[in-house]
Amino acid sequence: MKHFIFKLTISVFVWLFSVIIFAQQKPDYVIVIHGGAGVITKKNMTPEKEAAYRAKLNEALETGRKILEKGGTATETVIAVINIMEDSPLFNAGKGAVFTHDGKNELDASIMDGKTLNAGAVAGVTDVKNPITLAYAVMTKSKHVMLSGAGASQFAKEQGLEIVDPSYFYTENRWKSLQKVLQNEKNAEKEKHGTVGCAVLDKYGNLAAGTSTGGMTNKQYGRIGDSPVIGAGTYADNATCAVSCTGHGEFFIRYVVAYTVSALMKYKGLSLEEAGNEIINKTLKDVGGEGGLISVDKDGNIAMPFNTPGMFRGYLKSTGEKKVLIYKN
Amino acid sequence: MKHFIFKLTISVFVWLFSVIIFAQQKPDYVIVIHGGAGVITKKNMTPEKEAAYRAKLNEALETGRKILEKGGTATETVIAVINIMEDSPLFNAGKGAVFTHDGKNELDASIMDGKTLNAGAVAGVTDVKNPITLAYAVMTKSKHVMLSGAGASQFAKEQGLEIVDPSYFYTENRWKSLQKVLQNEKNAEKEKHGTVGCAVLDKYGNLAAGTSTGGMTNKQYGRIGDSPVIGAGTYADNATCAVSCTGHGEFFIRYVVAYTVSALMKYKGLSLEEAGNEIINKTLKDVGGEGGLISVDKDGNIAMPFNTPGMFRGYLKSTGEKKVLIYKN
Repeated sequence: MKHFIFKLTISVFVWLFSVIIFAQQKPDYVIVIHGGAGVITKKNMTPEKEAAYRAKLNEALETGRKILEKGGTATETVIAVINIMEDSPLFNAGKGAVFTHDGKNELDASIMDGKTLNAGAVAGVTDVKNPITLAYAVMTKSKHVMLSGAGASQFAKEQGLEIVDPSYFYTENRWKSLQKVLQNEKNAEKEKHGTVGCAVLDKYGNLAAGTSTGGMTNKQYGRIGDSPVIGAGTYADNATCAVSCTGHGEFFIRYVVAYTVSALMKYKGLSLEEAGNEIINKTLKDVGGEGGLISVDKDGNIAMPFNTPGMFRGYLKSTGEKKVLIYKN
Repeated sequence: MKHFIFKLTISVFVWLFSVIIFAQQKPDYVIVIHGGAGVITKKNMTPEKEAAYRAKLNEALETGRKILEKGGTATETVIAVINIMEDSPLFNAGKGAVFTHDGKNELDASIMDGKTLNAGAVAGVTDVKNPITLAYAVMTKSKHVMLSGAGASQFAKEQGLEIVDPSYFYTENRWKSLQKVLQNEKNAEKEKHGTVGCAVLDKYGNLAAGTSTGGMTNKQYGRIGDSPVIGAGTYADNATCAVSCTGHGEFFIRYVVAYTVSALMKYKGLSLEEAGNEIINKTLKDVGGEGGLISVDKDGNIAMPFNTPGMFRGYLKSTGEKKVLIYKN
């Protein structure tokens, strides 16, 4: 009996020890993604549609895992993961982007490297297949941070990026959304979001974040949202965290949302989760700024706060944790 | 004798008391402006040129004073003050804007209201006489924060703003600068700045800031700098301060400079002066990010840090203080 109690005590200690170790273990790498926040509820969803979203989010995460496992960098991973979502008509980025008031697709994207604080962004691109890849080219191959319109396309051509006919971005769903909005603004307000984003911690301890979007259905006058605005839609700093946002862009610009998460950690000493909650569930919620963000900090913690009914999101850690989520809870 | 000492003591106390009161007195209103930071030295300047700059900066400040004295608002003042500098060929904003690589003038501007945190911005405008006035129209008359290119011009026309032929922005000086840059990039690097900006505290305790620019000489590919980026070039929040930046825009975007001043005050408890110094004379200086900013806080304190040889700048307070400065010291 004494022997048994001794063995039991030992095994309890071993178990407790392993739990503590596991909980504190900094993962080698982390990927966290979003595919847009908005009025996403079970009611608005069919089982087939839900399965398609889950499969694509999973594919994006697994694409990132392969790269990070082999020692790929955070920026490389952000681009590859976002490319998967840009190429899918499910999301409002690349193929599947929403239409402007004039019936066009104008794409925005940005990327930031937390190690160097280098950044690249493009706004109002109409013929570049993968805007996030162009944002990376702006970061690494130009002396500028932000390019726009025809100039950004010209730069893409000079860099040998894949150019497509603007009709490539057409999807029937998004076209119908525009028609609905044009006929009855209120009824279709729900369908205006769907931005994609990714934040990564790599094996070398470097952070990166990126965001890509078609903006708002029915946007006018060359409107630029938060996605290509460094500090608003995207931010990464190895000293704090990497963040990508999605939501009502005008609010995200005015409240400099992505950078605020970093500033709250750096200057106010908040944790990643506290910082994300403060800006999304307090500051923005109080003023009606709908949306959310995904984030990873330098220790591999993640936070995915949002103040809308749903947000397509998921994460994956080298430690084995993985989740793909859509609704609240 | 005793009587005399008594009188003297009393008068010393009265004097000390008034000094303390005056020093702590919150001014009714404050205006602070800049006309660009860069390699601005006595050596590069003629007495005539210096007098012209001083006169125009003074005119801008006095224009603002008249508005504020009569009870005008902070945003109203920011626009009127910046209009004066936009209409002057001395500054790289409006008339006198620098030329792009393709020999065009593409103008950027932004404005932010510290009371409501509303903001408006325009990028790549080619035919609107006063971009800051258009930024204000975006803030107050559109549902967006940031408009760009031809779309922004279309919005300006619909709002009845003054449209000019693009040749209006031509000045011989700026054209020569472009030619110099095209011939020998290094030699002319000095002449790439000259943005204008204004920050105001009005009688009602409201803050506002605005920035207007032609960007960098020889900019390419629809480059957008920090001036139209809320958080980077412009920020205002009644809870902290109003800020307008000038300098190497790419750094100001990556370091979210204007908003960082506000964040350092709000989250780290720094004074306006400490916050401005930290971002301009430490963070940016360490990475070679040249430029400066002007700022006013909710109590009417001002700070005008810059890490370049000079910055055209000036301020005016309802208490009587007024200065127009160009060089370091």
